Amino acid sequence: MVSTEGQVITCKAAVAWAPKQAFVIEDIQVAPPLASEVRIKITHTSVCHSDVSIWQIQELVDVFPRIFGHEASGIVESVGEGVTDLQAGDHVIPFFQGECGHCSSCKSSKTNLCDEFVVNPGDGLMKTDKKTRFSIRGQPIFHFMGTSTFSEYTVVHRAQVVKVDPAAPLNTICLLGCGIATGVGAVLKTAKVEAGSTVAIFGLGAVGLAVAEGARISGASKVIGVDINPKKFNQGKLWGITECLNPLEYDQPIQQVIHQKTGGGVDYSFECVGNADVMRAAYDSCHKGWGVSVVVGIDTSRKILQLNPLELLEGRIWTGTVFGGIKGRSHLPELVAKYMKKELRIDEMITHTLPFSEINEAFKLLIEGNSLRCVMHMHNSEH
Amino acid sequence: MVSTEGQVITCKAAVAWAPKQAFVIEDIQVAPPLASEVRIKITHTSVCHSDVSIWQIQELVDVFPRIFGHEASGIVESVGEGVTDLQAGDHVIPFFQGECGHCSSCKSSKTNLCDEFVVNPGDGLMKTDKKTRFSIRGQPIFHFMGTSTFSEYTVVHRAQVVKVDPAAPLNTICLLGCGIATGVGAVLKTAKVEAGSTVAIFGLGAVGLAVAEGARISGASKVIGVDINPKKFNQGKLWGITECLNPLEYDQPIQQVIHQKTGGGVDYSFECVGNADVMRAAYDSCHKGWGVSVVVGIDTSRKILQLNPLELLEGRIWTGTVFGGIKGRSHLPELVAKYMKKELRIDEMITHTLPFSEINEAFKLLIEGNSLRCVMHMHNSEH
Ligand SMILES: NC(=O)c1ccc[n+]([C@@H]2O[C@H](COP(=O)([O-])OP(=O)(O)OC[C@H]3O[C@@H](n4cnc5c(N)ncnc54)[C@H](O)[C@@H]3O)[C@@H](O)[C@H]2O)c1
Ligand SMILES: NC(=O)c1ccc[n+]([C@@H]2O[C@H](COP(=O)([O-])OP(=O)(O)OC[C@H]3O[C@@H](n4cnc5c(N)ncnc54)[C@H](O)[C@@H]3O)[C@@H](O)[C@H]2O)c1
Ligand SMILES: [Zn+2]
Ligand SMILES: [Zn+2]
Ligand SMILES: [Zn+2]
Ligand SMILES: [Zn+2]
Repeated sequence: MVSTEGQVITCKAAVAWAPKQAFVIEDIQVAPPLASEVRIKITHTSVCHSDVSIWQIQELVDVFPRIFGHEASGIVESVGEGVTDLQAGDHVIPFFQGECGHCSSCKSSKTNLCDEFVVNPGDGLMKTDKKTRFSIRGQPIFHFMGTSTFSEYTVVHRAQVVKVDPAAPLNTICLLGCGIATGVGAVLKTAKVEAGSTVAIFGLGAVGLAVAEGARISGASKVIGVDINPKKFNQGKLWGITECLNPLEYDQPIQQVIHQKTGGGVDYSFECVGNADVMRAAYDSCHKGWGVSVVVGIDTSRKILQLNPLELLEGRIWTGTVFGGIKGRSHLPELVAKYMKKELRIDEMITHTLPFSEINEAFKLLIEGNSLRCVMHMHNSEH
Repeated sequence: MVSTEGQVITCKAAVAWAPKQAFVIEDIQVAPPLASEVRIKITHTSVCHSDVSIWQIQELVDVFPRIFGHEASGIVESVGEGVTDLQAGDHVIPFFQGECGHCSSCKSSKTNLCDEFVVNPGDGLMKTDKKTRFSIRGQPIFHFMGTSTFSEYTVVHRAQVVKVDPAAPLNTICLLGCGIATGVGAVLKTAKVEAGSTVAIFGLGAVGLAVAEGARISGASKVIGVDINPKKFNQGKLWGITECLNPLEYDQPIQQVIHQKTGGGVDYSFECVGNADVMRAAYDSCHKGWGVSVVVGIDTSRKILQLNPLELLEGRIWTGTVFGGIKGRSHLPELVAKYMKKELRIDEMITHTLPFSEINEAFKLLIEGNSLRCVMHMHNSEH
C-alpha cells in the first residue's frame, strides 16, 4: 500500500449542502492533519439522532456545506506533528466530547466536560487553526463536532480519538463513538445507579436502550421503558426493560402512571428523546426526596422548561449529561474491553447495515423509527 | 406544682387574626393532647423568615385566626395515649418536618421527607383528627405546620418533637428547631460538601450563616457570601465567609462575578433568600459538570423558574431541601451534642432577645434586616 501521508486525499464523503437537504456522495479533498491532529480512514459509521436534529436546524445554514457524523470507528492513516501516542494502522474510535487531559475538568473525576473542547454543533471549524480540512472543488466544507465521520477519511484533533484493542470488530464498536457509550455512561458515570434501584427510561432508541444496558449492569431491579412508538417495545424487552409504557394509551400523564406502578416514583429517570415536555415528565416521574433525573436528549426546538421553585424543595435532583460522562481517551478502551468480555452488548443494537452510498436511507430508517442503529461500511472491501 | 394533665390550659399566645396583621397577645385555651400527641410548655421561640412569608400570603386567609411559630424549645407538660418515649418534664425541640419513623422515606437514608407528615403551610389542622387544639372564646384557632410555637403551650404530634439533653440551654437550642438545623443540614445531609470545596451562599440571614457553619464543619476552602444588605457582611465574616459580595455593587450579573473569582464557578451553591431570580443566579454560579445548587429559600411569589433544556446538559445539579435533610427525631439530638461539644455554634446567631409580649418587634427586626435571630422567652421566670 502506497502511503498517503502528507498528501491531500481525494475520497468519497456524504456532503450536506443545506439544512434538511438530502446528502450527496461527492468526491472531496481531505488535507493532511496539522500538529496534534490525526487523519483517520473511517471504516464504519452509524447515524445518531443528534446528526438528524442538528442537520435539521435551519439557523445553522452558515456552516454548510457540511460533513456530519460522529459515531464511527476507523484506522489511523497518518498523524500530525507531536502526536506520539497514535500511529498509522492503529484502530481507533473518534468521539465528539474531547478530552484534552490536562484542564481542571479533565483532571476531575466528576465530569467529562473538558474546558478546552466544548461541544458546539454550531462550530464547523477545526480547533487548531479555525479552518477546515475538507474541501470540494476548492470550496471549504465545514466539520461537525470535530468528528465528521460521514467521509471515507476525516481529520480529528488528538483529544477526540482513542486507540482501541485491534481485536475488537470495527463494524460494531463504532457504536461506542456515541450512542452506546452515552447511554451506558449516563447510568454508570453520571447517575451512578445502585443495585436494586428502579429506573424509568424515556425514549427507546439506541441511547435509551443503552441506558437499559447500563441499568442491567448496575443491577437495577425494575426498568420501565416509555415510548410513543410501540415498535420499540420488543427490542426493549431484549435489553432488560421489565415494563413498557406508551403514553398515548393512558388518559393520565405518564408520570402519574409511573408513580402508581412504583409506589411514589422511580429512583432514577433518563430522558433519551430530546423533548422538553418529556424531560419534565421524566423529572416528575422520580421519587420525591431522592429521585435523580438525567437529561440525555437534545431538544433543538428552543422550548423552555418551567419549574415552580417550591417543586425543587421536594428534593428531586435534576441534571444532564454529554456523552454519558465518558472521557473518551480514558474510558472508551474499558468499554471496548467490557464488550470483548461479553459484559456489554453492542451487536443487538445494530438493526440494519448499509453501504455508505445509501446514507439517505440510513437517515430515513432512523427518522421513521424503524432502526436502532444502521451501521454503514465505508469502503467496498469491508462489511 | 399542680398537674395540668388532662385539663384545658388557658395561657397567652400571639394570635394572628388575618394575613399580615399584627399579632395580638390573647388568652387562649389549649386542649389536652390526643393519642400520639404531646403538649409542650414552650420556653423559647424565635422567628424564622418562613413565619414572615407564610403570614404574608393573602390567599391563606381561610386558616386564620392562626398561631404561627416553628423554631422553639420547651418542656413536655403532658403526653397523649400511647406516647411512651416522652414524659412530662422532658426537654424537647418541636420541628415542622415530621418523622413518623416507619414509612419508606423515613427508612431511607436519602431523605427526611416523611410520606406521612408532608409539610403544608396551608393546612391549619392537627393530623390526628383534622381539628384544632387551640381556641379563643370558643372559636378554633388554626395551627401552623404542626408546631405553632408562638404560644405558652402548644400541642404537637409525637412525630414532630424530640427529647434532647436536659443540660443543653433551652434559650439557644431553640434555633435547632429550624434555621440552624436547616442551614447546617443543607450542607452536611443534602449536598454532602467535601473538604476543600468552594461554596457560594446567597442570603446571609440565619439560614445562610448556618450554611456557612456547615461549610466550615465540612472543611470548605472558600465560602463566598452574597447579600444585598451590607449590614450582614460583618456577621458573615464571623461565620467563616471568606468573601462577601453585594450584587448591587456590580454591573455584571453576580453569577459572572462568581465565575471569575472561582475559575469557572463554585462546587456548591445554596439559595437562602426565597427568590426565584436568586435561585437562578445560584444555579448559574455553579461550575459546569459538577456544581450542585441547593435551594433552601421559599419563594411564595408564584414566580416560575425558566430553564433551557440544553443548559441541563452542562451537568450542573439542581435540587432543594426541607429542614436541611434533617430527620428531627433521629438527627436533632446529634446536633445538640455537637453544640454542647462546641463543634457547632448557635449563640452567635442570637442578635436579640425579647419577652414574648414584644413579638411584633421581633418580626419587625427580621423583616427590616436588623436581626439574625431574636429569641423570645415565653414565661416571665425564664430568660
Ligand atoms: N447528551 C448526549 O451526549 C447525547 C448523545 C447521543 C444522543 N443524544 C440525544 O439522545 C436522544 C436519543 O437519541 P437516539 O439516537 O437514541 O434517537 P432515536 O431516534 O433512536 O430514539 C428516540 C426515541 O424516542 C421516542 N420518542 C419520540 N417522542 C417521544 C415521546 N414524546 N415520548 C416518548 N418517546 C418518544 C422515539 O419513538 C424513539 O424511539 C436524541 O435527542 C439525541 O440527540 C444525546
Ligand atoms: N427549606 C427549608 O426547610 C427552610 C427552612 C428555614 C427557612 N427557609 C427559608 O430560607 C430563607 C431564609 O430564611 P432566614 O430566616 O435566614 O431569612 P432572613 O430574612 O434572615 O435572611 C434572608 C437574607 O436574604 C437577603 N436577601 C434578600 N434579597 C436578596 C437578594 N435579592 N439577593 C441576595 N440576598 C438577598 C436578606 O438581606 C437577608 O439577609 C427564607 O426563604 C425562608 O423561608 C427554608
Ligand atoms: Zn450521538
Ligand atoms: Zn480538558
Ligand atoms: Zn423556619
Ligand atoms: Zn415517615
